[in-house]
Amino acid sequence: VTLERDRNAVLFANEAFYIAFRARDMTAMQALWAQRAPIACSHPGWTTLNGRQDVLESWRGILANPQSPAVEMRQARVLLLGDAAIVTCYELIGDIVLAASNVFVREDAEWRLVHHHSSQAAALPDSEPESSGTTSVQ
Amino acid sequence: VTLERDRNAVLFANEAFYIAFRARDMTAMQALWAQRAPIACSHPGWTTLNGRQDVLESWRGILANPQSPAVEMRQARVLLLGDAAIVTCYELIGDIVLAASNVFVREDAEWRLVHHHSSQAAALPDSEPESSGTTSVQ
Repeated sequence: VTLERDRNAVLFANEAFYIAFRARDMTAMQALWAQRAPIACSHPGWTTLNGRQDVLESWRGILANPQSPAVEMRQARVLLLGDAAIVTCYELIGDIVLAASNVFVREDAEWRLVHHHSSQAAALPDSEPESSGTTSVQ
Repeated sequence: VTLERDRNAVLFANEAFYIAFRARDMTAMQALWAQRAPIACSHPGWTTLNGRQDVLESWRGILANPQSPAVEMRQARVLLLGDAAIVTCYELIGDIVLAASNVFVREDAEWRLVHHHSSQAAALPDSEPESSGTTSVQ
């Protein structure tokens, strides 16, 4: 039951990230990232950004830019690792498919983002039921 | 002292991964990945692989292929997250620069890999002393 609850909470946090992204909601985006844990972010083709200031500044720029594309998230899979979790998923931007890795930690009883790495992928794999994609530490 | 020990152990595990990669040592590679925690891997441009069988099969193919390039690792930075840790670093393959995210968990008192995501980056950033790159949960 606890693992199932964690799994759902992590999927929810991952969806909240993409909702904030699509809605260009910087206030929500800021709240989604960890406050105390160290954070980093690798946007597609960029060098990796480290620390809250640089990471949030990059998102402020992306969300403020009217040219920024609307991203759709697909095929989220959760890897539960105790008080950390990884979500692997795909991001669709028109015809472009990106593979994303989002790492979360439990902070103040919430799952907050500590790392986002997104990069171009060959294609979206055949869809699988989301429940089959969840694995966890025994 | 404990954080410093964890940081060094994580950097060591990350280096061991690239040493196994360069040495095409599948036995070492297999031992580096978590035994019980769920694992995943996003090779550059591929779709994300999930589970020990698919992930290790991909590495078996890469290490067995004489055309596989020699990878050099640069600028490792550790994000300590308790019993999990992320290393962000760069991989050099000739003139190509890749940004990598490697996620580790503590398993049997060792840091073992649970996720590797590598993708092409614009360029290697100006080098910084490795010690300045380490941050951790307070």
